[in-house]
Amino acid sequence: MKDKRIAEALMDIGALSLVDTEHLFTWVSGIRSPIYCDNRKIISYPELRKKVAAGLVEKIRCQYPDVAIIAATATAGIPHGAWVADQLDKPMIYVRSSSKGHGLQNMIEGVCEKGQRCVLIEDLISTGKSSLTAVRALREAGLIVEKVFAIFTYNFPEAGLAFEREGIDYEALTDYETLVPLAIERGLVAGDQAELLMAWRQNPRLFTEDHHPQG
Amino acid sequence: MKDKRIAEALMDIGALSLVDTEHLFTWVSGIRSPIYCDNRKIISYPELRKKVAAGLVEKIRCQYPDVAIIAATATAGIPHGAWVADQLDKPMIYVRSSSKGHGLQNMIEGVCEKGQRCVLIEDLISTGKSSLTAVRALREAGLIVEKVFAIFTYNFPEAGLAFEREGIDYEALTDYETLVPLAIERGLVAGDQAELLMAWRQNPRLFTEDHHPQG
Repeated sequence: MKDKRIAEALMDIGALSLVDTEHLFTWVSGIRSPIYCDNRKIISYPELRKKVAAGLVEKIRCQYPDVAIIAATATAGIPHGAWVADQLDKPMIYVRSSSKGHGLQNMIEGVCEKGQRCVLIEDLISTGKSSLTAVRALREAGLIVEKVFAIFTYNFPEAGLAFEREGIDYEALTDYETLVPLAIERGLVAGDQAELLMAWRQNPRLFTEDHHPQG
Repeated sequence: MKDKRIAEALMDIGALSLVDTEHLFTWVSGIRSPIYCDNRKIISYPELRKKVAAGLVEKIRCQYPDVAIIAATATAGIPHGAWVADQLDKPMIYVRSSSKGHGLQNMIEGVCEKGQRCVLIEDLISTGKSSLTAVRALREAGLIVEKVFAIFTYNFPEAGLAFEREGIDYEALTDYETLVPLAIERGLVAGDQAELLMAWRQNPRLFTEDHHPQG
């Protein structure tokens, strides 16, 4: 069961943006989307960021009590990774999004040793590409990556497949399936937009092709 | 008086690297250097990162008790900014190092309002360029930037001048003048290297010209 309170809070702070097909967001991955969840706003709300950290800490304590290191993805995962590491009193490292041309291992900042067990803190999972690049960098450094813990996931089938192929699991505090019905309840989603949001979620790549600006 | 304990701790964790003139570091700014202080290692040491956060928090509480927001520079300043913001229970924002071509104001992640007072947390000050780009971005967003607080500064005259021109002050927990004598005490610096380190600090640009790989 995903966390409804976190989903509610994301709407309370205005992290959720919804647009019509005329004004789609274009993500870094190229996906065009009628919805955008800006988790980076969370850091400006002390109460919410504490709830988020507590939620992540609870999962880690329960599932991986012996984890040695808290890793975070740059940039948006770093503050949450820092709060989680502080509560667990564990060393922290982070994985930069580019290696400055020096190879996967040089993407890691901080100190770690081969064979250490870590979890990876991510703010948001869409295609999973950035999380999995970080996972590969950590593994190349000899770390055992137990799981990716995120604040939110769009639950794309594409992401599920990509994580499966990489042989790693992920878990998020809350997700698209929890957020959208709440947004509908709040009247943030017009009637016909709800269907659009579900069609988009099932296959965002196909949706993107169908809604190309020049198409 | 700068913090000797932090300087000692930086050496304890191996953050300080010293090389001879044959193996100089080349920084992003183009400066070639016989010394490099990798503050990013601090995040992997819970006790030290707590001392760092406590030191920064003490200065902020004392000097700017009414600050509204804790800002941090991406990427290395973010974890420290997060711990400081947590202890002060203040909202946090961070400033990305590039605007992805969308202007200074879009470098800011998180939520802030015009007229709010903030301090900027930075991990390390060399030329001051990245701190001052962040200060400009914050000011363009309408924030009042009280001061830049860093963990370490090389105390370059060039940085002092750049901050003065920008009309903002900075303060670091510890600095080059504290670190180098301690490194000499510990036998990390050979006799003739001490003079080299002082010559370099006085004018790193001239030193760089004199020690160009092709020169």
